[in-house]
Amino acid sequence: MTERGLLIVLSGPSGVGKGTVRKELFSQPDTKLQYSISMTTRSPRDGELDGIDYFFKSREEFENLIEADKLLEWAEYVGNYYGTPVDYVEETLQKGKDVFLEIEVQGALQVRKAFPEGLFIFLMPPSLSELKNRIVTRGTESEDLINNRMKVAREEIEMMDAYDYVVENDKVELACDRIMSIVTAEHCKRERVSRRYKKIMEAEF
Amino acid sequence: MTERGLLIVLSGPSGVGKGTVRKELFSQPDTKLQYSISMTTRSPRDGELDGIDYFFKSREEFENLIEADKLLEWAEYVGNYYGTPVDYVEETLQKGKDVFLEIEVQGALQVRKAFPEGLFIFLMPPSLSELKNRIVTRGTESEDLINNRMKVAREEIEMMDAYDYVVENDKVELACDRIMSIVTAEHCKRERVSRRYKKIMEAEF
Repeated sequence: MTERGLLIVLSGPSGVGKGTVRKELFSQPDTKLQYSISMTTRSPRDGELDGIDYFFKSREEFENLIEADKLLEWAEYVGNYYGTPVDYVEETLQKGKDVFLEIEVQGALQVRKAFPEGLFIFLMPPSLSELKNRIVTRGTESEDLINNRMKVAREEIEMMDAYDYVVENDKVELACDRIMSIVTAEHCKRERVSRRYKKIMEAEF
Repeated sequence: MTERGLLIVLSGPSGVGKGTVRKELFSQPDTKLQYSISMTTRSPRDGELDGIDYFFKSREEFENLIEADKLLEWAEYVGNYYGTPVDYVEETLQKGKDVFLEIEVQGALQVRKAFPEGLFIFLMPPSLSELKNRIVTRGTESEDLINNRMKVAREEIEMMDAYDYVVENDKVELACDRIMSIVTAEHCKRERVSRRYKKIMEAEF
């Protein structure tokens, strides 16, 4: 009767600091999140272990997994494949653990298709939240600079729409607190709790 | 362009400790919640101030407000009316403050009708979460005791269905943390954040 874990996907525009936030989250001693181990075709670096740092695979093995639809998301960078193995995620969720994925926006959209019930968090650059102040002071800035900033802002606001939550990365610690609050709140959702108790009652009577 | 605050309603079975949790929440110096001041027809006690402890009204005034649909919820106890004035709640929300209400289950159902977008939190007695363990050890308990416990549990599980979140009151501090996490998470909901930015963009361009 273990309750299935949550799949938590952290994503956002490149350069927003997803990796830093993820490292901070996992440096906390009381974290109950399980980091999703990626799969790659690149060679292990000194000290990297298979099944801990990455699942290391040959190109052929990786392509077979793509073919068999065994990757939640994947991409090719500088001649190597990187991806998230669906079986590992699925088994960890079934054990009742919350799985945490930190990936690029394109990957997040792929994951959403396979796990629509996942919890998708958009890490927002503080530049966007400063937008309003900047608009107010724009008298002092060039038209080009303002137009470019507006274009980026518009793209980021559109990007958000694929997510469930938006967390501003103004300070890494604050961003982590918000992410942990979201996870706590999701575990308190009535559907989840009520389903658990209804199962207990049914099982016993 | 102030974002409307959230209406947070804490309720649950009588005796679960709603008042204790509410007091603990408001004893925290960094709370940003605004406690909703109740209206009553009972006389002020020593030291109680109008507009701080309660809004004190005559019976006639109160009945006129009921008539005019100006109470979010109300009830009569030992000859006195108690209720939540809708105007105060509405004005506070419009200032962008989160309003916190702690009320009985019947009142919560009334509030839900007027504010379906509110955040309804069910405070769950720890006796319910201990249900599973108790079932396992039931060999040592009388049939009557078990049946009665099951009846109560069934009622509580059904009560939950009208709420958005369920928070176990195993420890007051933990319950408060969960409630604050729920409030934080709700402020990070994409619809809220995205709406705010879309408004900024529209207002400026």
